[in-house]
Amino acid sequence: MIDVLISKIKEKQNPSVVGLDPKLSFVPGFIKEEMFERYGKTPKAAAECFYAFNQAIIDATADIVPAVKPQIAMYELYGADGIESYIKTVAYAKEKGLVVIGDIKRGDIASTAEAYSDTHIGRVDIDGQTYEIFKEDFITLNPYLGTDSVQPFIKNCRLYGKGLFMLVKTSNPSGSEIQDIESEGKPIYEIVAKLVEKWGLNLIGESGYSQIGAVVGATYPQQAKKIRNLVPNTFFLVPGYGAQGGTAQDMKNYFSEGITGAIINSSRGIIAAHQSAKYAERYTQEEFALCARQAAIDMKDEILNALS
Amino acid sequence: MIDVLISKIKEKQNPSVVGLDPKLSFVPGFIKEEMFERYGKTPKAAAECFYAFNQAIIDATADIVPAVKPQIAMYELYGADGIESYIKTVAYAKEKGLVVIGDIKRGDIASTAEAYSDTHIGRVDIDGQTYEIFKEDFITLNPYLGTDSVQPFIKNCRLYGKGLFMLVKTSNPSGSEIQDIESEGKPIYEIVAKLVEKWGLNLIGESGYSQIGAVVGATYPQQAKKIRNLVPNTFFLVPGYGAQGGTAQDMKNYFSEGITGAIINSSRGIIAAHQSAKYAERYTQEEFALCARQAAIDMKDEILNALS
Repeated sequence: MIDVLISKIKEKQNPSVVGLDPKLSFVPGFIKEEMFERYGKTPKAAAECFYAFNQAIIDATADIVPAVKPQIAMYELYGADGIESYIKTVAYAKEKGLVVIGDIKRGDIASTAEAYSDTHIGRVDIDGQTYEIFKEDFITLNPYLGTDSVQPFIKNCRLYGKGLFMLVKTSNPSGSEIQDIESEGKPIYEIVAKLVEKWGLNLIGESGYSQIGAVVGATYPQQAKKIRNLVPNTFFLVPGYGAQGGTAQDMKNYFSEGITGAIINSSRGIIAAHQSAKYAERYTQEEFALCARQAAIDMKDEILNALS
Repeated sequence: MIDVLISKIKEKQNPSVVGLDPKLSFVPGFIKEEMFERYGKTPKAAAECFYAFNQAIIDATADIVPAVKPQIAMYELYGADGIESYIKTVAYAKEKGLVVIGDIKRGDIASTAEAYSDTHIGRVDIDGQTYEIFKEDFITLNPYLGTDSVQPFIKNCRLYGKGLFMLVKTSNPSGSEIQDIESEGKPIYEIVAKLVEKWGLNLIGESGYSQIGAVVGATYPQQAKKIRNLVPNTFFLVPGYGAQGGTAQDMKNYFSEGITGAIINSSRGIIAAHQSAKYAERYTQEEFALCARQAAIDMKDEILNALS
């Protein structure tokens, strides 16, 4: 799947991903009114708002971006209805030819990890009937429990050509409290990056990158440069661009050569573009997805300019 | 909620918790047949199997144990239907007077953590309508992203009297890869334990324990003793007893005095007791929950003996 992602990045000349982290406050009034009328002010209505919102964003950006990254927390907020909406969003994005990175950040002991792995990137057996439940192409995971907690995911990556992005250096300020602790002169995030490289050694694709990538926050360009040199076969998923503070100029540190080696995520900057003055005045409320499209094009141009 | 948990432990003289981590292979044939007939061999059927199974286990153990700990991965395995089954299980256990520890191990940046926190231990607002979605009393969390990722949960602990158990030293073998890395002579798990203590400083109940507890695996009794002395106001949730290798004799290291300071989890050892020779021969398939009851009583006796 890493080769597919990289070929889509090249084809669209765009190493960025749209973060589908909707909030009800991002959803235009006309969608909310329709869903509240149909389902009341319920979790079901909120979940349907997200699905309608996402469909419009996906339709408006699918020819520009290689991938989307739904953040499952935003859907889990509405319980089973929200999970249903997440699953439908994944399916819709894949129908439209997009690679889907499920931002789930799960992590548990092996016997439990197996359940997460089978449902998100594997197969689920029910007395001889086989199901694919979530169907993401990639998922993000937390490395705190070490190798045996990741093995059930590596197994499904091999079996079904899926991919992982392991948290290495997260974009938030407090990530440093544990990730930057030094042991014998090396910070934890470097030790984790080397583990991630090891997990991916037998899963390197034709692109030269492994199916096991790393999450490296856009807010730490100096650390990113060190990690980039340390693990040349590890592809980066880079959150924290835009709203969290990462800038286009910083992005050079995350890429290997040209536009390969990393994919940059923006969530609010794209999907809530219709609420920023820069885009809002050019479009009507019904055209909110066109704002997302324009924001995605602007982000692409910013990154390509900075990288060239 | 930590005071409620401790008072229930004292009332029942039992510092153990039943892990509700069902698998289809644990569910007796007569339940599966009924559900497959009703719903086909579908995720919905599997989810309903779990709920029926859990209800029987809860009914058979509610007078003996203070708490249950459903592991959400086992339910997420079946997508939205599974999540529905998890939520119904939480509600049923609470109806029966049990404290519910949701083993969710989430962890994300603050804006995302807010969604997890509101849905699991807080309130969710839908255009002025307020919902409680998951309604656990406690949840487990991963600390890899540091303080700002935990703040949204601490906020809801304060507002709604809920509690957390932060992963400190996990029960699995590979947990050591990151958790045992030493910095200036101290392993990461000690550094995390001190962070957890700090997060709970303003949330100490009448029991002397804080609402922010720690997960310390039953398979590491020596490390547990060090952590126990290091953070005396931090309550421990102890997974890994039984099937994973933790023994009753080891448990002394996890408690402060008498039966306070920790709660020990057993999952397979209790809920799959009907499949072990020790219990199976005494009961019919329909009486599987009586096996769980007897196993819970045996575990309680083992622990109390070891602690006395």
